[in-house]
Amino acid sequence: MTPSKLKKNDVVLVGFPFDYNSSYLRGPALAPSHIRERLYSDSGNLCAENGIDLGKTNNWHDFGDIECFNSKKYFQIIENFITDILDQKARVLSLGGDHSITYPILKSYAKKYDNLTLLHFDAHPDLYDKLDNNTFSHGSPFARIMEDNLVNNLIQLGIRTINPHQKKQIKRFNVQTIEMKDFSSNINLNFNGPVYISFDMDALDPAFAPGVSHHEPGGFSTRQVLEIIQKIKTSDNSNISIVGADIVELNPKNDINSMTAMTAAKCLKEILAKMIS
Amino acid sequence: MTPSKLKKNDVVLVGFPFDYNSSYLRGPALAPSHIRERLYSDSGNLCAENGIDLGKTNNWHDFGDIECFNSKKYFQIIENFITDILDQKARVLSLGGDHSITYPILKSYAKKYDNLTLLHFDAHPDLYDKLDNNTFSHGSPFARIMEDNLVNNLIQLGIRTINPHQKKQIKRFNVQTIEMKDFSSNINLNFNGPVYISFDMDALDPAFAPGVSHHEPGGFSTRQVLEIIQKIKTSDNSNISIVGADIVELNPKNDINSMTAMTAAKCLKEILAKMIS
Amino acid sequence: MTPSKLKKNDVVLVGFPFDYNSSYLRGPALAPSHIRERLYSDSGNLCAENGIDLGKTNNWHDFGDIECFNSKKYFQIIENFITDILDQKARVLSLGGDHSITYPILKSYAKKYDNLTLLHFDAHPDLYDKLDNNTFSHGSPFARIMEDNLVNNLIQLGIRTINPHQKKQIKRFNVQTIEMKDFSSNINLNFNGPVYISFDMDALDPAFAPGVSHHEPGGFSTRQVLEIIQKIKTSDNSNISIVGADIVELNPKNDINSMTAMTAAKCLKEILAKMIS
Amino acid sequence: MTPSKLKKNDVVLVGFPFDYNSSYLRGPALAPSHIRERLYSDSGNLCAENGIDLGKTNNWHDFGDIECFNSKKYFQIIENFITDILDQKARVLSLGGDHSITYPILKSYAKKYDNLTLLHFDAHPDLYDKLDNNTFSHGSPFARIMEDNLVNNLIQLGIRTINPHQKKQIKRFNVQTIEMKDFSSNINLNFNGPVYISFDMDALDPAFAPGVSHHEPGGFSTRQVLEIIQKIKTSDNSNISIVGADIVELNPKNDINSMTAMTAAKCLKEILAKMIS
Amino acid sequence: MTPSKLKKNDVVLVGFPFDYNSSYLRGPALAPSHIRERLYSDSGNLCAENGIDLGKTNNWHDFGDIECFNSKKYFQIIENFITDILDQKARVLSLGGDHSITYPILKSYAKKYDNLTLLHFDAHPDLYDKLDNNTFSHGSPFARIMEDNLVNNLIQLGIRTINPHQKKQIKRFNVQTIEMKDFSSNINLNFNGPVYISFDMDALDPAFAPGVSHHEPGGFSTRQVLEIIQKIKTSDNSNISIVGADIVELNPKNDINSMTAMTAAKCLKEILAKMIS
Amino acid sequence: MTPSKLKKNDVVLVGFPFDYNSSYLRGPALAPSHIRERLYSDSGNLCAENGIDLGKTNNWHDFGDIECFNSKKYFQIIENFITDILDQKARVLSLGGDHSITYPILKSYAKKYDNLTLLHFDAHPDLYDKLDNNTFSHGSPFARIMEDNLVNNLIQLGIRTINPHQKKQIKRFNVQTIEMKDFSSNINLNFNGPVYISFDMDALDPAFAPGVSHHEPGGFSTRQVLEIIQKIKTSDNSNISIVGADIVELNPKNDINSMTAMTAAKCLKEILAKMIS
Repeated sequence: MTPSKLKKNDVVLVGFPFDYNSSYLRGPALAPSHIRERLYSDSGNLCAENGIDLGKTNNWHDFGDIECFNSKKYFQIIENFITDILDQKARVLSLGGDHSITYPILKSYAKKYDNLTLLHFDAHPDLYDKLDNNTFSHGSPFARIMEDNLVNNLIQLGIRTINPHQKKQIKRFNVQTIEMKDFSSNINLNFNGPVYISFDMDALDPAFAPGVSHHEPGGFSTRQVLEIIQKIKTSDNSNISIVGADIVELNPKNDINSMTAMTAAKCLKEILAKMIS
Repeated sequence: MTPSKLKKNDVVLVGFPFDYNSSYLRGPALAPSHIRERLYSDSGNLCAENGIDLGKTNNWHDFGDIECFNSKKYFQIIENFITDILDQKARVLSLGGDHSITYPILKSYAKKYDNLTLLHFDAHPDLYDKLDNNTFSHGSPFARIMEDNLVNNLIQLGIRTINPHQKKQIKRFNVQTIEMKDFSSNINLNFNGPVYISFDMDALDPAFAPGVSHHEPGGFSTRQVLEIIQKIKTSDNSNISIVGADIVELNPKNDINSMTAMTAAKCLKEILAKMIS
Repeated sequence: MTPSKLKKNDVVLVGFPFDYNSSYLRGPALAPSHIRERLYSDSGNLCAENGIDLGKTNNWHDFGDIECFNSKKYFQIIENFITDILDQKARVLSLGGDHSITYPILKSYAKKYDNLTLLHFDAHPDLYDKLDNNTFSHGSPFARIMEDNLVNNLIQLGIRTINPHQKKQIKRFNVQTIEMKDFSSNINLNFNGPVYISFDMDALDPAFAPGVSHHEPGGFSTRQVLEIIQKIKTSDNSNISIVGADIVELNPKNDINSMTAMTAAKCLKEILAKMIS
Repeated sequence: MTPSKLKKNDVVLVGFPFDYNSSYLRGPALAPSHIRERLYSDSGNLCAENGIDLGKTNNWHDFGDIECFNSKKYFQIIENFITDILDQKARVLSLGGDHSITYPILKSYAKKYDNLTLLHFDAHPDLYDKLDNNTFSHGSPFARIMEDNLVNNLIQLGIRTINPHQKKQIKRFNVQTIEMKDFSSNINLNFNGPVYISFDMDALDPAFAPGVSHHEPGGFSTRQVLEIIQKIKTSDNSNISIVGADIVELNPKNDINSMTAMTAAKCLKEILAKMIS
Repeated sequence: MTPSKLKKNDVVLVGFPFDYNSSYLRGPALAPSHIRERLYSDSGNLCAENGIDLGKTNNWHDFGDIECFNSKKYFQIIENFITDILDQKARVLSLGGDHSITYPILKSYAKKYDNLTLLHFDAHPDLYDKLDNNTFSHGSPFARIMEDNLVNNLIQLGIRTINPHQKKQIKRFNVQTIEMKDFSSNINLNFNGPVYISFDMDALDPAFAPGVSHHEPGGFSTRQVLEIIQKIKTSDNSNISIVGADIVELNPKNDINSMTAMTAAKCLKEILAKMIS
Repeated sequence: MTPSKLKKNDVVLVGFPFDYNSSYLRGPALAPSHIRERLYSDSGNLCAENGIDLGKTNNWHDFGDIECFNSKKYFQIIENFITDILDQKARVLSLGGDHSITYPILKSYAKKYDNLTLLHFDAHPDLYDKLDNNTFSHGSPFARIMEDNLVNNLIQLGIRTINPHQKKQIKRFNVQTIEMKDFSSNINLNFNGPVYISFDMDALDPAFAPGVSHHEPGGFSTRQVLEIIQKIKTSDNSNISIVGADIVELNPKNDINSMTAMTAAKCLKEILAKMIS
């Protein structure tokens, strides 16, 4: 549990229970505790579908949650935490919280990686210049990330709510947005450099993930998402190239029998196993 | 809100909160208010997947609900309302209510269109000669429609509950029933003349639409339905050929966190955007 | 209701309301009454998708539940009941209860059939040598079945939770485990001899079957399961070769509006219609 | 479990899973299995508030459910079962099912007891001459009981839905109906002869018992009901004078997290402990 | 249904499906349709506890809902509607919608009655000068009413959330606020002049009324509320002195199995029966 | 947030998200985050019923949660944390977690207070010598506390599940157990020395607090609990004599729309306001 003991390429699991920048409903601050409850539940096990038993590996570490009492300084706290981990050459899998946390996380990553591919699963482009007059809204992180040139390119999957403003932003920032209506399972997922995955739970159809703030029907099945994650390849065929990830926007207040928390835990296991395999 | 101001090909959105002809559970009378709550909610936006922002077009109009105090005269009230709109060369997207309302709606359409194709999404054929001794039951509208020759041909999608009586009716009325077990996404959806869409929410699998009176597992995913709607083409390639539609049988009393109402609103947006694009 | 009146190849429907061997949550003992409530509900009908109206056939019989007061003797009671039916050359469709009941059922079948293929739908291999120190746990029946050589071969579908121990067991018993991540709808389902189907409801994705004790995301859709059942063929092309089946692990305490009980009833209808057609 | 082994004054617990005579919603047939699930759950214990540990007494016996395949003969089956028990000088605590079962039960009791007091907890008087044209409806058992003079007097508690017809019946049959609006905790509950308790779960307020078919706000709290049961006294101060009881109209399909089933189990424990103490 | 046919002292039931002024959650606009669904449901009957059968009286009339498309003009629409009814010497029982509607209603009443007592049931005083910068917020109607001197005196029951600002307002407007912690069932409810009842569903404890936007534990039981309503007396002992009422703030999106809608319908029946008896 | 800045008699709010000692269901570890979500929600305010606005006082401090990675050392971590606070002459209001945490908390308190009265609200006596072979079970903390003589006397309220073993323990430890069936609102709550309150949410009836692991019907209403808290008096009439408290056993996994979390937050506000007033 002490950052100083991290080995190179280790993965740190951390929760950022923060939802001050949600536009419609609060709740994602409760997500990290619910995801962990399901992850460690006797109901299942810690094995991923690639055969790795996460319960028996020593290259990932659960650091718990970074508590949030002061919303104004929290972005800085997130950025500092991530930077600390990256400085040790380790990697981070973050649990939101709302999607606004991806911006401070990526600010840290940009300092270390200069050719990052950002793979973004979401029902929404989250490219609003501002939402409800908030430039750090959970609907705006990717506008900030692109303005600051924090990544080399942004690829979006699962999108099904583009409006004229967001369409403009997609063009402005040269985003590769693959709309849900155009998605095909033959999609090419071979990347040349390091990849960061930002996974908004509402990329999934509400049938599979009812526990989100914004139900947007017509999304991925859980199996489709697992297949995409499992298919990701990098040019040197090394998974170390997945250098970080976040799972955000689970809203336990809308969940049913913890079904969505379990789905988040399943995605977490697959992403983590992919990272450390 | 005054019918007299309608322009040619405008679309009128109207609710018929009526469920006196339901055989098993009441509830669909609550549907129009729930669908509107989700349609206009800050949780989403009014953009359809073809890029049209329904919030910024002036060729559709929400006329609210036609209240129902006298069940016996309500079919006549529906028929009169629809006729008034069609007389102005406008079109109607109706929100049920139970499926029995499609019969009076089609009676009006038949007066204006003599070669209508009726595209019917449903888990059930709804071709009962009568149900619970009610010839106007929500299980019988298509028997009445076919007996009265109100449409040129009836195409059914999503069906998965055919019994011997309904099989006989399918043959008697020469219905093109594509059972769910035989459905393929390669289906041809090019039509020669005007098309009317009657969409029963239980065409969807209960996982995607739990808020219906009759759960019938094995149905469409929401994405499959959206693809079908988006693929509809008419011979002159003009969407004006979708001359009307209804979305029926949402039962908010069985819904979970308004998930099905949101799915109905999503289908509404796609059908409406297809009609006015 | 008297076993003595059974005709050759008749199918007996029976419930085993037993969940003493569940490792995590109790509840499956409530399943048989909930499945029947949906099966006979006025909400649907008794027709299967192959056109057979189960309400109008006389070659299957609902024998109700075998009550369970003494957990220690219950396995023997199950075995005796099944043997009685098989001795009359009839077949059994059993409703669990937890998955532990499949072991005593198969003990009876093995006495009659020496070349049985066991087709097992499940999220989990259920091959634990023991679970929570219980060798008869609902996580262990297939270990017992394979140790006792009760079947000729075991084919598993839907699996998505293999851990190292279970992997070892799969190899030890030479099980044909088709993991969910490798499943393709082109799967060959032609069998040479008699087939027994053991259907754990959690083979389905929790979106389609929330009413189970162990949510494991990434499973089958209901339609995929129905397709598999409908595609099963035996070498002599005779359905009589499906000699028995069980549907287990429905947990009504986790169900939502009886949605999963309805899905179990739908699977029951398709399996039963396949058996008697 | 064999009736022949019953001792004098033993109490038999039996379930009648029957709801064919429900007027509005089906579901009570599922009640006996749900009440038992809670009664025997590790969540609580089998001690009543008077200190008796029902898990350590041998003067009551759970006979399970009497299955119901033929609704027409079921009343006769109930009557015969009760008569068998009473003939052995034992007593019965029955679990419904809907309230219609109280009529055949009382027919048996009337053969043995000629001065029975019937203490009836309910939101509704259930004195309809007929309901939906059904004279054996769950809204009519007490009309039949009074017409047949099966009891000496009928006392009703919790009533809050009297309409003019039922008011007439109350007068006709000289029923002592204590309406909820007039209820006081000072009520006198000393009886001279044998007492039979018929407990409809909807006597409780829906806040305490949401799992009923007919929500009728303004009812008893659970504590009020427990106090009434605990205060019942008979002239010879002998509890043997509670000669029978039923708990009916739990509808698990409307229940929330088995809360109402637990309340039914609590009432069962208190009534049973009162009977055998 | 035509206002011109109203007789003196008739009561008009009307719905105002409006929730634009809610501060926290939307939803109350759905309330009128849900309350009616329960009021007219076959699950209960239309008799009040004072013996009046509302189904057989001709001195009240359901006028349905006044649809709301333009939030800015809606207050004026409400005021005009109420004035029309009062001009015919009839009375109004309004169904909200959020609590903001009470202000325009009272503006109409003040024109006709100059010595009105306003009896207000609520968990909150709703006396905010403004809330979220909205002077017409659902937290502010009674501040506006008192500033405009629309009533002679304001009596508040059920209050349990007074903060310093509201305490100041209570003093400023000389409101008789009986806090829940000081409530006794011996309260004197004899009034000298006409009484208007404004009933916020959250006056009830969330156990009895979960379907509200703001859960505030520690409130009335349903029975306590019914007793208060039934005890109201006016000096001339004439119920005609209850000249109007509203039932507001039901939020069906938070409701459980329509339990709160049923409780609203029960209160409606008791208030209406009190008004017309 | 730094313990060193605490003033004398300040109150520290802290969460112990721990449920390893639960016997039946896990879940209480999620409670602290859910209680805070409701406590700080815009849905209500921070005023207590005695007029104190907790949002505007500086004598209490939310220290967040003490994370729990190592269940074996966690009791020691709790004890150390509490001791640190008490050493600064401050007080603690702890949020569980399951009830097992009260033992290490009281071990710290006993070092500072030698004549403590422990006021314990619960449905269960929690005096098991051991449960499921665990002497630190959530069913055993008060057995440990009494064995170690950590308090001067133990008073129990709300109890309604005494079994013979617990009855023996009550006598052995001379506990003042006021069973729910004997509770009267006239109870004397004047104490001579310092008081510690241990509040198990299941002291409340499940209607008011469904979000607990063990539903035990027949408990307190929320208002009854608030009255008891508000009535507590100490001989010198100084509230400083409430020297500590805990609120435990909320299980968010069983909660409905966060209703129970809100009730816990309400109790928290009343206890806290009582402590600092």
